[in-house]
Amino acid sequence: MKKENIAVKNKLTKTKYVYLFGGGKADGNEKMKDLLGGKGANLAEMAGHRDLKLPVPAGFTITTEVCTYFYKNNKKYPSGLKEQVQKGLKHIESVMGRKFGDPENPLLVSVRSGARRSMPGMMETVLNIGLNEKTAEGLIKQTNNPRFVYDAYRRLIQMYSDVVMEKAEGIEPQETKGIRQQLEKELENMKQKKGIKLDTEFTAEDLKELVKIYKRKVKEVLGKEFPEDPYEQLWGGIRAVFLSWNGKRAVAYRKIEGIPDDWGTAVNVQAMVFGNMGDDSGTGVAFTRNPATGEDKFYGEWLPNAQGEDVVAGIRTPYPINEYSRSEHSKDLPSLEKQFPKIYQQIEDIRKRLEKHYRDMLDIEFTIEKGKLWMLQCRVGKRNGPAAVRMAVEMYKEKLISQEEAVLRVAPSQLDELLHPVVDPVKEKETKVLAKGLPAGPGGAVGRVVFTANDAVEWTKKGEQVILVREETNPEDVEGMRAAVGILTARGGMTSHAALVARGWGKCCIVGAGDIHIDYEEKRFKVKDTVVKEGDWITLNGTKGNVYLGRLPLIKAAEENLFFVEFMKICNKVRKISVRTNADTPQDAKKARAFGAEGIGLFRTEHMFYGEGSDEPLFILRKMILSTTEEERRKALDELFNYMKEDIKKTLEVMEGFPVTIRLLDPPLHEFVPKRKDEREKLIENLAITEEEFEKRTSKLHEVNPMMGHRGVRLGIAYPEITEYQVKAIFEAAAEIVKQNKKVLPEIMIPVTSTEKEIVHQKQIIEKVYQETLKKFNIDRKKLPLVVGTMIEIPRACIIADKMASVCEFFSFGTNDLTQMGFGFSRDDIGGFLPSYLEKNILSKDPFQTIDFEGIGELIKIGITKGRKTKPNLKVGICGEHGGDPESVKFCYNVGMNYVSCSPYRVPLAILAAAQVVAEKNIKNKK
Amino acid sequence: MKKENIAVKNKLTKTKYVYLFGGGKADGNEKMKDLLGGKGANLAEMAGHRDLKLPVPAGFTITTEVCTYFYKNNKKYPSGLKEQVQKGLKHIESVMGRKFGDPENPLLVSVRSGARRSMPGMMETVLNIGLNEKTAEGLIKQTNNPRFVYDAYRRLIQMYSDVVMEKAEGIEPQETKGIRQQLEKELENMKQKKGIKLDTEFTAEDLKELVKIYKRKVKEVLGKEFPEDPYEQLWGGIRAVFLSWNGKRAVAYRKIEGIPDDWGTAVNVQAMVFGNMGDDSGTGVAFTRNPATGEDKFYGEWLPNAQGEDVVAGIRTPYPINEYSRSEHSKDLPSLEKQFPKIYQQIEDIRKRLEKHYRDMLDIEFTIEKGKLWMLQCRVGKRNGPAAVRMAVEMYKEKLISQEEAVLRVAPSQLDELLHPVVDPVKEKETKVLAKGLPAGPGGAVGRVVFTANDAVEWTKKGEQVILVREETNPEDVEGMRAAVGILTARGGMTSHAALVARGWGKCCIVGAGDIHIDYEEKRFKVKDTVVKEGDWITLNGTKGNVYLGRLPLIKAAEENLFFVEFMKICNKVRKISVRTNADTPQDAKKARAFGAEGIGLFRTEHMFYGEGSDEPLFILRKMILSTTEEERRKALDELFNYMKEDIKKTLEVMEGFPVTIRLLDPPLHEFVPKRKDEREKLIENLAITEEEFEKRTSKLHEVNPMMGHRGVRLGIAYPEITEYQVKAIFEAAAEIVKQNKKVLPEIMIPVTSTEKEIVHQKQIIEKVYQETLKKFNIDRKKLPLVVGTMIEIPRACIIADKMASVCEFFSFGTNDLTQMGFGFSRDDIGGFLPSYLEKNILSKDPFQTIDFEGIGELIKIGITKGRKTKPNLKVGICGEHGGDPESVKFCYNVGMNYVSCSPYRVPLAILAAAQVVAEKNIKNKK
Repeated sequence: MKKENIAVKNKLTKTKYVYLFGGGKADGNEKMKDLLGGKGANLAEMAGHRDLKLPVPAGFTITTEVCTYFYKNNKKYPSGLKEQVQKGLKHIESVMGRKFGDPENPLLVSVRSGARRSMPGMMETVLNIGLNEKTAEGLIKQTNNPRFVYDAYRRLIQMYSDVVMEKAEGIEPQETKGIRQQLEKELENMKQKKGIKLDTEFTAEDLKELVKIYKRKVKEVLGKEFPEDPYEQLWGGIRAVFLSWNGKRAVAYRKIEGIPDDWGTAVNVQAMVFGNMGDDSGTGVAFTRNPATGEDKFYGEWLPNAQGEDVVAGIRTPYPINEYSRSEHSKDLPSLEKQFPKIYQQIEDIRKRLEKHYRDMLDIEFTIEKGKLWMLQCRVGKRNGPAAVRMAVEMYKEKLISQEEAVLRVAPSQLDELLHPVVDPVKEKETKVLAKGLPAGPGGAVGRVVFTANDAVEWTKKGEQVILVREETNPEDVEGMRAAVGILTARGGMTSHAALVARGWGKCCIVGAGDIHIDYEEKRFKVKDTVVKEGDWITLNGTKGNVYLGRLPLIKAAEENLFFVEFMKICNKVRKISVRTNADTPQDAKKARAFGAEGIGLFRTEHMFYGEGSDEPLFILRKMILSTTEEERRKALDELFNYMKEDIKKTLEVMEGFPVTIRLLDPPLHEFVPKRKDEREKLIENLAITEEEFEKRTSKLHEVNPMMGHRGVRLGIAYPEITEYQVKAIFEAAAEIVKQNKKVLPEIMIPVTSTEKEIVHQKQIIEKVYQETLKKFNIDRKKLPLVVGTMIEIPRACIIADKMASVCEFFSFGTNDLTQMGFGFSRDDIGGFLPSYLEKNILSKDPFQTIDFEGIGELIKIGITKGRKTKPNLKVGICGEHGGDPESVKFCYNVGMNYVSCSPYRVPLAILAAAQVVAEKNIKNKK
Repeated sequence: MKKENIAVKNKLTKTKYVYLFGGGKADGNEKMKDLLGGKGANLAEMAGHRDLKLPVPAGFTITTEVCTYFYKNNKKYPSGLKEQVQKGLKHIESVMGRKFGDPENPLLVSVRSGARRSMPGMMETVLNIGLNEKTAEGLIKQTNNPRFVYDAYRRLIQMYSDVVMEKAEGIEPQETKGIRQQLEKELENMKQKKGIKLDTEFTAEDLKELVKIYKRKVKEVLGKEFPEDPYEQLWGGIRAVFLSWNGKRAVAYRKIEGIPDDWGTAVNVQAMVFGNMGDDSGTGVAFTRNPATGEDKFYGEWLPNAQGEDVVAGIRTPYPINEYSRSEHSKDLPSLEKQFPKIYQQIEDIRKRLEKHYRDMLDIEFTIEKGKLWMLQCRVGKRNGPAAVRMAVEMYKEKLISQEEAVLRVAPSQLDELLHPVVDPVKEKETKVLAKGLPAGPGGAVGRVVFTANDAVEWTKKGEQVILVREETNPEDVEGMRAAVGILTARGGMTSHAALVARGWGKCCIVGAGDIHIDYEEKRFKVKDTVVKEGDWITLNGTKGNVYLGRLPLIKAAEENLFFVEFMKICNKVRKISVRTNADTPQDAKKARAFGAEGIGLFRTEHMFYGEGSDEPLFILRKMILSTTEEERRKALDELFNYMKEDIKKTLEVMEGFPVTIRLLDPPLHEFVPKRKDEREKLIENLAITEEEFEKRTSKLHEVNPMMGHRGVRLGIAYPEITEYQVKAIFEAAAEIVKQNKKVLPEIMIPVTSTEKEIVHQKQIIEKVYQETLKKFNIDRKKLPLVVGTMIEIPRACIIADKMASVCEFFSFGTNDLTQMGFGFSRDDIGGFLPSYLEKNILSKDPFQTIDFEGIGELIKIGITKGRKTKPNLKVGICGEHGGDPESVKFCYNVGMNYVSCSPYRVPLAILAAAQVVAEKNIKNKK
């Protein structure tokens, strides 16, 4: 449609661009956020809703559609806007009883942005619009307060010249050396000249002089006069707000937050009210409940004779609004409750009405102008994790919200806060960041630096808390990683070895801190000029990825938190998909079960070789993989058998009554070849071979692309005896538990399959051993049912899932590998290109963190659809890292999986996500 | 259906199990191969078809259904068979005028196998059935030839005891020390005793005595008498033939040839005729055309007074049947044409009738018994490549066959024979195989052993022919590989580096010869005890994978063969899909164009760095990849630009008028890091960095799984300037040709894409450079159209092909990588597990050789379907190795691709396959 036509259309349909509010009514309401922005919609709601009708300074909102039009039409406004704004001004004038630009009884207005979603501080605001030489004089007459008026005037010039005259015009601060800085300099000069320190010490005369100086400076620097015409001021302000939607900061913020560029911002024009008109004035901000704890108590701060920005700026210590809000800092300061009991009562009453109306905790702003209360803002209040959980639980109990709403009130990241100790945010703010990395394992950790896994173990034994610092980690470091309280690596991404292991344990971890240069020889690392030696204390914030020098205090995790427990109960009532855990040890299994896991979705048999305790199993395994004949391998497997059986049995016992999916040996054998010289020598000696022969055997295991090499079921096909012994260990472990009259549900999972014949081949072995075990233990097959399934982690397996399903009883999607193969992205190597992919927006998310719904997700859908075509009751789950990612959990539910499985510390998050996806559906269906 | 029911059903429906032939009629015909086997069907055809009615000894065929029944029913026969066999015997008796078991006028019969498809020598035969003490006497009376009769008798015992009494009974030769060997020993004893050397020197009395000795020995060794009852002999023979269907040799053969186990064999019982009844008897085999050259001349051998096996056995030198068939060996021997002119005329007449009837070259067997001609067998004759091509062309010209039939008469492997020199098969037969490997590059090669690429180059410069022997090869060896006449590696599979490179050049190559142990230090290799030193001569048969010590003669390739050229013309008339080539050099392009390639489907820009000529480009490239800033990279790319442009230009010129698809840089950069110390030092010096810094930069390029690492378009995204310079080189090369008024069609192909945004990103660069080039050269866009497409080689790209197609103009399936990612099989590492997969029949074929239709093929289908949904005219091709595999070419046609592309020496095979798939369809549609 051509521009002219749009104009014609707008004229004909008389599009409403301006929505009025105030004086006990409003054109809009809270639901119109898309059109009016969050701020505008809430102002309309407060002003106009029949249950509220709160005292809101009159104003109007210019819609986001105008912003969109503005950018589509070469920064012009739609026709009709001028007239509607004019009407809006008339409305304000009539409600407030003042007149815009009137020298006798002038109306001042603010111009503020307001997007659909809050973008705090990212766009511009201009206050006090309408002041000029004439109206200032009029206002002085009215208020009898010249100091206040000139202060407002100089603030207007300061703000307007910066925002409207410089930034909005696209003038680079370099050219002007920054009008804001230059006016501030003038302010400082004035202070020096007058011999004072604080702004508040200026007299009315001082400020009047400053206004003159400012105006001169503006003309000098920007080559233009500060506009005296109130209408020019107003339209300049509106234009500046619209332009700030595409300012650098706002664009960057939208990119991070995923806010579409075409939403646009609304503009709110509202009558100014002043909390700085004397001792009968004041201003304050408050939360309807405590945002740090969730407690159902009114919580807030105020300041007498002050404007809103003074409370936030932190120059004056704010006063508590009531006794409950009193802190160390404010212990001797008067509360609003005491100082203005009537006003406090009024606000307290508004608090209750607002909570009942919005059914949530709110963040409100108010101003008292000469004893009259004005509500300036209200919006759903930000809260931390513990508070979110407590409020959700309590509001649900109060029947303020439904169970679905309760579930949706807590973001996964908020729940995560409850699971890990965190660095004290106050102290953290005061501390310089030493280095930044990727936040791989959330929470905080404080410990002394060590550089080897061995040292981590040794120091810990001696009672030290250590942080293991490595270039990157590998399976040989696992023991040290477990011993350490935190892990820091210089290389690797969010799915590197360190990140995976740490997340699995809920351990604080930062990876890929590229500024860290480690010198293993000297046992130290450097960040620019700072040298950190072995034994030095450092603190990690694994939630943010920040490293600090020294010891910062930690705030304990609230695992025992009663509200957490109750909240999880609500989630469990709502969710439908089952949640299991990926656990390889009895400890992990126990932890996960406590968190609500309903079984194990992935038990990695190979893990035992890197666990705590004896080195013996690993040594025997190494002998096995270096064997050259089946006979040798069988001998080693024989030695290994009891270790395997015991390892499996312990975890089966912990998970009594729940299914435990045990994956057969998966990694390429080369991974087990020792790197340490002493270990190699021990092996050579034990195998009684030459070093040359040892090299020959190990180099034969080496692979160019091990991820796509001889691993998973391919090992079981080449060496059926490996499968045989593993399966025997599983069945005998289970049988021994059955003999104790306990219920046990092992499920055998074959990894890395790409054709149904692989499964058939392995099942022959499995069934043979199964029959032998039943016989040996004299057990009925009902007491130990045979369940064999497969990982689906190779793209081909998805494509032929109908055939795969015909020979097995469950699918477990291994989305890590499926993402690797499906994208052709080696997880170990994405550091080379994924950053530029994300930066250039070629991928919007790291597909190893959240399932790539479009591609890998489609493969999963094909897999499930084809699989269920053959076997309608096919059990389907996921056991990749994605099983603990909330978005991915929702996807899994939507595609019809029976369960997700994730590391123990992700179990609560998975349960929450599983509940949220159902809650969203239920709420949508109700509508 | 239960056994009894089948029996009842058979009785009711009177299933025909026995088909008679002979005496001018037959129950069956040539089309009934499934039921009667090849042999039985052809005997029936010869005997019964109205155009033929040839003199075939009467007989009957027991159907393959009986064999199937036999194995399904615990080795029992269906009821009714006995009676039908009895009737069959009656038929033979009546036609031949003899009686089975009659002491006066005995009929002897042969019992032979006959499967649907020929399985030469894999199953059993028993001759002379019906002989015993009594019938022998009768036969002597009739023939007056006791020597002949006792010879036949002792042969019966020898064969029967071995085949029926030992093997068919499942007796292991170890237990009996082998009855065959033991009787042979008796024969030798007898010879010694009589002081003679040849069987023919035995007198009738000697043979009679031998019969007695044999019978005694049989009883002694097997504990059972040789059966004198002719019926027992007959049924024993039939049973032995059926049992031999599941003999070890037959089962193994079927597995290799892909013949289903449930086809079963037929059994042919036929009257014996004897070519060894005196000088008026004889026997022969012949081909209706020369099977070695294809010439339309009758070609065969015969022997007077001999049985069929004597001709084949090679004890007596066979005589030529005519002058044409006379060879060096038979130059003084009488021809059948001369000796028995009438019989020869009769056969010559039969030859013509048979060819006209069968419309193909036939292989016939005949016997002359006392002056009477009997036809014993006729079947389509085996032929070598050149003969197959010539016959196809000539028969098509003779209008004996249609163009479709002509195209189907030549197997791809036969056509391949014409493209490479081959080892003289006669000499090869006489030579011991030194080692066996995989047949990676077909044809033969003779040369002196060298162990380094450098030596290969140096020796060749000195005029030597060399064979390069390596553990495995890598890109640095390429120059030496090109210099060598053949390549032999100890490791690697059919798709290893050596195999790919050699096949691309049509060079003889054997890979993965595991028995070869190379000692680079000592410059020698060992195979068991044989030591082969540098400079020793060896011969490779790359078609079979055999290595020979010494120099074997080679037979030249028939590339200039006129029939080859004419045959390709026929193929081109029939085929519909286009055939391009994968070529990186002007030489390859020229070769492929001569073979009929209609463009280049894959030109790898990186190839120039490993080609012949200057080392300079590789050196500059290395500088580029080790650069740390864009500025440094641009500087190196500037230096590289002219090399790139000239390299591309040469090939574009050779392919004038045809499209040339140029792929942007693909391999992970680490591949280019030099391994040789001198080269590393040169780079360090030139870059003016420390060795430490060099190590740091190169180790940064190292990847754990390079195949899924930073390669392909990922390089172009991270370093857009690399794309920019490459594209500039392409367009400027093309523009320079356009300026010469020549037609040029470059197509730019982006590799390793997994999302459409990658293409969009690269296209921005490409379009910018394109516009600049048009401007610089002042060319109209019509003269140099912009065509940008992508490889589809990542599974995700198939899944989202609708989106991929929306931003590009063609897809080229990179099936090598698609197979790697789709299966999760690293091509470099499959040596560890693929052999056991093939051996255990988990995969029936190496998916890197023939497209895995079920899995990867399905991904391709999804890709094409989705792609064409967005862009119905999307051009689709393939440029993986599979483009030269005949089965895969057919698949590509069937899924609707526009073209296939393969290495130059595979072009004729691809053209043939492309024609065959159409021919098969046309013929099917006609029916």
